[in-house]
Amino acid sequence: MTTRSTPAEPEQDARVRAVFDDIRATRNTTYINNLWRMLAFDAALLESTWADVKRLMATPSHLDPLTKELIYIAVSITNACSYCVHSHTAAARAKGMTDAQHAELLAIVGLAAKTNQLATGLQVPVDAVFDGGPVPGGA
Amino acid sequence: MTTRSTPAEPEQDARVRAVFDDIRATRNTTYINNLWRMLAFDAALLESTWADVKRLMATPSHLDPLTKELIYIAVSITNACSYCVHSHTAAARAKGMTDAQHAELLAIVGLAAKTNQLATGLQVPVDAVFDGGPVPGGA
Amino acid sequence: MTTRSTPAEPEQDARVRAVFDDIRATRNTTYINNLWRMLAFDAALLESTWADVKRLMATPSHLDPLTKELIYIAVSITNACSYCVHSHTAAARAKGMTDAQHAELLAIVGLAAKTNQLATGLQVPVDAVFDGGPVPGGA
Amino acid sequence: MTTRSTPAEPEQDARVRAVFDDIRATRNTTYINNLWRMLAFDAALLESTWADVKRLMATPSHLDPLTKELIYIAVSITNACSYCVHSHTAAARAKGMTDAQHAELLAIVGLAAKTNQLATGLQVPVDAVFDGGPVPGGA
Amino acid sequence: MTTRSTPAEPEQDARVRAVFDDIRATRNTTYINNLWRMLAFDAALLESTWADVKRLMATPSHLDPLTKELIYIAVSITNACSYCVHSHTAAARAKGMTDAQHAELLAIVGLAAKTNQLATGLQVPVDAVFDGGPVPGGA
Amino acid sequence: MTTRSTPAEPEQDARVRAVFDDIRATRNTTYINNLWRMLAFDAALLESTWADVKRLMATPSHLDPLTKELIYIAVSITNACSYCVHSHTAAARAKGMTDAQHAELLAIVGLAAKTNQLATGLQVPVDAVFDGGPVPGGA
Repeated sequence: MTTRSTPAEPEQDARVRAVFDDIRATRNTTYINNLWRMLAFDAALLESTWADVKRLMATPSHLDPLTKELIYIAVSITNACSYCVHSHTAAARAKGMTDAQHAELLAIVGLAAKTNQLATGLQVPVDAVFDGGPVPGGA
Repeated sequence: MTTRSTPAEPEQDARVRAVFDDIRATRNTTYINNLWRMLAFDAALLESTWADVKRLMATPSHLDPLTKELIYIAVSITNACSYCVHSHTAAARAKGMTDAQHAELLAIVGLAAKTNQLATGLQVPVDAVFDGGPVPGGA
Repeated sequence: MTTRSTPAEPEQDARVRAVFDDIRATRNTTYINNLWRMLAFDAALLESTWADVKRLMATPSHLDPLTKELIYIAVSITNACSYCVHSHTAAARAKGMTDAQHAELLAIVGLAAKTNQLATGLQVPVDAVFDGGPVPGGA
Repeated sequence: MTTRSTPAEPEQDARVRAVFDDIRATRNTTYINNLWRMLAFDAALLESTWADVKRLMATPSHLDPLTKELIYIAVSITNACSYCVHSHTAAARAKGMTDAQHAELLAIVGLAAKTNQLATGLQVPVDAVFDGGPVPGGA
Repeated sequence: MTTRSTPAEPEQDARVRAVFDDIRATRNTTYINNLWRMLAFDAALLESTWADVKRLMATPSHLDPLTKELIYIAVSITNACSYCVHSHTAAARAKGMTDAQHAELLAIVGLAAKTNQLATGLQVPVDAVFDGGPVPGGA
Repeated sequence: MTTRSTPAEPEQDARVRAVFDDIRATRNTTYINNLWRMLAFDAALLESTWADVKRLMATPSHLDPLTKELIYIAVSITNACSYCVHSHTAAARAKGMTDAQHAELLAIVGLAAKTNQLATGLQVPVDAVFDGGPVPGGA
């Protein structure tokens, strides 16, 4: 079940078609997954979301493509977003994630959640050595 | 402020000292940060937590050390654990994270949170192509 | 699947029937949605929960009814409560939410999550100008 | 810093004073902690919140007082509510929580968070044997 | 404490100055709050974040400015983002939020969190009547 | 749907069989629930996770078995982990949780979430009396 209906023929909207064409070209596939199909109900939201995803996830940058997917999965698990866990695990596998790396990712995500709870439960004060510096003019 | 007092001389407990010694040796430092100092109130909890962290974060494995810290930060931000965001950002920097990589990490963590919200808000159904397979015998 | 069974004829309990009658009268409908049906396993919990919802959501107040539903959806998305996202999106639509407003709600919820992550990831100190004042006697 | 100012003499409002008097009588103390002082800016919100807390936490019931505080702490840690972690840890200690029980609580909260992440990361399907039963009439 | 240092004179970077100038013009103030000062460490991240905030929060749209701030606060509270709760509560007050509206916002955010927990704890199945429709072609 | 396939005959791996045997012996059942079946894809992760669960949840300790399950459920609800809510509610019932205790657990979890939101929304400063003490040497 979804929370809203979407147009039966979303690509009749030229802006939607332009985004879908760019998704297909960028990912070298004919498949448009459900998130994009549903976002088609609002062309502006679809455009800005895809622009962000393309710029950060599908453009060469300072982090390699697989590392970026692993970070994405880590956030999605922590936010309990079932859809995103599925879609980005599939994406990570397509970018070469091995079973051993997947197991390790899950183990680290679990460990981080555990020590997050310990630090919050104890209300551990932040060590002065971790300070990254002042905010100029922000006093 | 913290939620509990900790012993003034935690290393008088031989189990605590053994863990602290291992932290110092593993990290090649004399500094023990506050999380470990606070966990010293219960030697068993200290031992098991450090054993997990050492095994996953300080042992060569299928993911490189910096990638593991980036994943750790991503979870810690999403869980709003102030202490952990500080300690693991410092650790990532010690392992070579550049300013550009830090900016990109934050951008991806922010983007993932945004699309998590969109997928959850729309209750997007998971695409069949994302299915990873059945659970044997789990019917 | 659910985590507990509920009575087959919940309205045989007079307290449950009184609440269901009030839900039907307040909402001008014959339909009782699943949350209330399940809460019927404990009359006290059902009564106090409905009393809260009726007082805050179904009584004229300082915020208009649609705004209140939008706030409710925002929290439900952030908590990844699938049931609540569905039920309150339906309620907002019944109170006049347009497609354009829905798209905008989702966009703001996504943006807020993104900047929440940036502020937490950077551990931005709160500006002094944002201080709302002291707590009298709370020293 | 807080997000709003509160009246310097909150007990000049008779409704606030009645709640504060009840807090002092119920808890057998003269101390009113900051949450109640801040909620005093809106008497209705103060009254309903205290009524809920008193009924569930300060009234003999099906769970013993310490167990109820441990549950409260577990939720507060998971929601990263610094104030609530502090106030309910202090309350649990006042109700007899030992250091060993505190350590065990933290260990279980950490373990639960870890296995939550594993189950969500793997998207483990719920076993049929866990089903609690249907919702009557809710089809 | 923060997690990273920021340039002492951020506006020496022309891109940063352009964004800061636009913030000052859009908000009709000389004050630049700490989030923007810290984001100045990466001009691209600063630009894209401000562009999103300006477009959604500072442009006339389908929701009124105060409603948008209330939604923003609701998400920020739920994510436990201390900075964002402070900054957006201040912004809502600047846009006319009264004390009574603030109290009501907090009460609704609290109620939503409570019923989110009930629905999740009971694993209430979504009512068929809440279905918003199929995803075309997404099978 | 799941995020990864698992071996059809997991117990052909001697390490997996050893863990499954220990689960069956510890719980006095022939049933292995899906979480363990899925974790079988990585023997090390399976072993360490079960070791943690067995040590904390299935060994006599400072908290009684039912209290430990209630804490586990509270965290699982707050993290919106559907699988874990189901499995630990079933486990709590097997350990004697009554309907009245279940209703009370849900009510407290809901109340805690509500007051967490109020404290975070108001940014209530922590009372000095809640301070648990300094961190020795952690300055």
